[in-house]
Amino acid sequence: MTDFRKAAIQYAHENQQRFLDDLKEFVSIPSISTEPEHKGDLQRAAEWVANRLRALGVEDVQLFPTAGYPVVYGNYMKAGPAAKTVLVYGHYDVQPVDPLELWQSGPFDPQVRGDNLYARGASDMKGQAMATFAAIEAVKCNGGLPVNLKFLIEGDEEVGSPGLGEFIASHKDLLACDLAANPDTGMLAEDFPTITYALRGLAYFEVRIYGPSHDLHSGLFGGVVHNPAQVLCELVAAMHDAQGRVTLPGFYDKVRSLDQEERQELSRLPATEAFYLEQTGASALWGEVGYTPVERIGARPTLEVNGLLSGFTGEGSKTVLPAWAMAKISCRLVPDQDHQEVYEQLKKFVEMHAPKTIRYEVLNLVGSPASISDRRSGGVQAMVKALETVWGKRPAFRREGGSVPVVGEFQTHLGIETVNFGFSLPGDNAHSPNEKLHLPTWYRGIDALIHFFYNLAE
Amino acid sequence: MTDFRKAAIQYAHENQQRFLDDLKEFVSIPSISTEPEHKGDLQRAAEWVANRLRALGVEDVQLFPTAGYPVVYGNYMKAGPAAKTVLVYGHYDVQPVDPLELWQSGPFDPQVRGDNLYARGASDMKGQAMATFAAIEAVKCNGGLPVNLKFLIEGDEEVGSPGLGEFIASHKDLLACDLAANPDTGMLAEDFPTITYALRGLAYFEVRIYGPSHDLHSGLFGGVVHNPAQVLCELVAAMHDAQGRVTLPGFYDKVRSLDQEERQELSRLPATEAFYLEQTGASALWGEVGYTPVERIGARPTLEVNGLLSGFTGEGSKTVLPAWAMAKISCRLVPDQDHQEVYEQLKKFVEMHAPKTIRYEVLNLVGSPASISDRRSGGVQAMVKALETVWGKRPAFRREGGSVPVVGEFQTHLGIETVNFGFSLPGDNAHSPNEKLHLPTWYRGIDALIHFFYNLAE
Repeated sequence: MTDFRKAAIQYAHENQQRFLDDLKEFVSIPSISTEPEHKGDLQRAAEWVANRLRALGVEDVQLFPTAGYPVVYGNYMKAGPAAKTVLVYGHYDVQPVDPLELWQSGPFDPQVRGDNLYARGASDMKGQAMATFAAIEAVKCNGGLPVNLKFLIEGDEEVGSPGLGEFIASHKDLLACDLAANPDTGMLAEDFPTITYALRGLAYFEVRIYGPSHDLHSGLFGGVVHNPAQVLCELVAAMHDAQGRVTLPGFYDKVRSLDQEERQELSRLPATEAFYLEQTGASALWGEVGYTPVERIGARPTLEVNGLLSGFTGEGSKTVLPAWAMAKISCRLVPDQDHQEVYEQLKKFVEMHAPKTIRYEVLNLVGSPASISDRRSGGVQAMVKALETVWGKRPAFRREGGSVPVVGEFQTHLGIETVNFGFSLPGDNAHSPNEKLHLPTWYRGIDALIHFFYNLAE
Repeated sequence: MTDFRKAAIQYAHENQQRFLDDLKEFVSIPSISTEPEHKGDLQRAAEWVANRLRALGVEDVQLFPTAGYPVVYGNYMKAGPAAKTVLVYGHYDVQPVDPLELWQSGPFDPQVRGDNLYARGASDMKGQAMATFAAIEAVKCNGGLPVNLKFLIEGDEEVGSPGLGEFIASHKDLLACDLAANPDTGMLAEDFPTITYALRGLAYFEVRIYGPSHDLHSGLFGGVVHNPAQVLCELVAAMHDAQGRVTLPGFYDKVRSLDQEERQELSRLPATEAFYLEQTGASALWGEVGYTPVERIGARPTLEVNGLLSGFTGEGSKTVLPAWAMAKISCRLVPDQDHQEVYEQLKKFVEMHAPKTIRYEVLNLVGSPASISDRRSGGVQAMVKALETVWGKRPAFRREGGSVPVVGEFQTHLGIETVNFGFSLPGDNAHSPNEKLHLPTWYRGIDALIHFFYNLAE
């Protein structure tokens, strides 16, 4: 190990508490992008990032307006034209917090309990962004950065980054680089450093069924009017077959199939049935027949009901025949599915199956492409080596079930590969109450990032 | 017509505005029995009724505590032991008001627009109770009442009268009478006076499906965990077959079938398909194959979804795989179904169809028996004649789809028949926003009730 590396690692270790304090400040901002009342908090979070970048010595830091929340941009080009340029991606927005009553401490009142920091965004992904800033600081203060950096930190990831593709497409020169680093994926386990080479896309819809013109008395009219909640249930029930396959017409037509080599590699991952049972608390697993759990999550598309609402849902009984019913339904997509095509498939499905007794609407809320990267590229190999140095073992390669829309957009518009990594753990409750960050893993992650930046220059 | 009848009718006409003012006062009280925060309003409504009865000269007026809200009791026995005793039933509680934003004026701010009084409870059934009080006052002030009266006005009808059966069973002497008058059913149309000789029973349940121990990220876990909202939809979808029949095991075993004579009589009712389409605003009717709309509502049991709730239901998108899902499900029952047996049938159904991937609960919220009365009894015939006098045509006999639990309880515990009538119209939006009462029909109803009390004594 060079002296600079050693010194940078030492620097990071000595500054762990300060990095944690910074992160606590960051996660205190309730930057929930799905809830319009938090608009001001999103602005504050964007400014927090901009100031943190300025403190790092990043130049040209500015907030670019988009159709959604601002993109924070900045660059640090002092490594010179011969050095590689890395585009660091991140997002400063977080998921909603409901059900709030299940949180053991306030979602925006960060608390360390045991080895973990509890707060919304601690793991997804303010903690990951902060780890990256920390590593950059450590490298920069110990011999200087051997690579150039650009930053693109957005505020719409949790709503599917609707305007980001357009922003990237219209700022190709500004964002031009050799590769991107995306710390928004996670690890399989505490002792299992992980590189994610494929991400699923997302297509999010709302299906609304309209029956009578107003809520009816279920006694006076029950038996002659088709209940829209029942119709909705019939439609949703028909969206899967008995083999757990999605029945939208043409849904699997463009799905890239797994070859034997890739299936074998995925089978080495430690994500057993027991692991998923423990993580989810489900009493038994479920899914598409013919695929392992790892394959079903990473390499197969799915359709989920994210929400249902109709009629009377309070305590007790109200004998209403509801006027309408609604389901939030989303699909996770894999290469080479197209989210617009899946929207057409869902509309076709509802058109085919909806009875004449009701009216319906199918709304297209959010869509983003799946992505897949070359496991043998230089950027990925720099991260492989970094993780191996810190954890003492080769990282796992996996396909992740979640979606990071920007990775597909980088591929499309900038023609670059992305290294997807991150130091969150499966039990970190991303998107759930009591989100947390495992601090020992986070500190190791900062060390790994320090090595990554040095490795890139070698 | 006797002079007393004439004078009583005249008295009622002269006092219409005062009766309406009284009703406005009554419907201003938000006595929503399904919502615990209205407890004080239920008490106020009970006291309003007690005071109104005292003003009529009713004796022994008192509020009997029950497991739910108090029963208002009173009697007027001055017609002597040779005269018939009529037990007047009513309820002072009302339905919830949501969705509040659809009301054109406040649900508890009674407003007359055109021929209608708009307020929650105007039609169901504070208006009907007030019509009865008005008629009694008119008769009493014009020669005195020719029948004895007892009153049982409850506050739990809209939650299914859970404690009323027990109250009646334990107060048989207090309530002893020759027949009951129940003004809580309605008319088929403005020009169609109606006597209801059968009422459906009710069995109200909540089905809860529990999947993972907490809400999951639909990307990280979608594909390996059975989505409880999907499971709920599958179960609900399976509760009807393609013929619109309910599939709970044994559901139709005890259903009394319609004979040819009764089917013929029901076919004379003016409730055509066009009528139901207009009343409901549905684009097409639906229901059990092999029965007319009138038969399906009055003489066939049904199963309705009253509410659905799961996961994220706000604006926008949240990629959650929900931990649980809930449906409110109720059945309207006909003679001789038993609501406890239907609960067992639903539990059996869920047990048969629920996958091993989830846990479930089936809660039994409310149950009440169906009832059927003799169309040739003296009480019914007194009402037939009264309606004929006022409307100039013979009333229709119908089986109503709604439930008035107390009618079955009277039959069981007091061994008496009930005359079911009422002056609400199908378009009155009972249980919906903008509930109203058609005042010209209401005033005719008061006249009819005056005749009813005289007819009973003849």
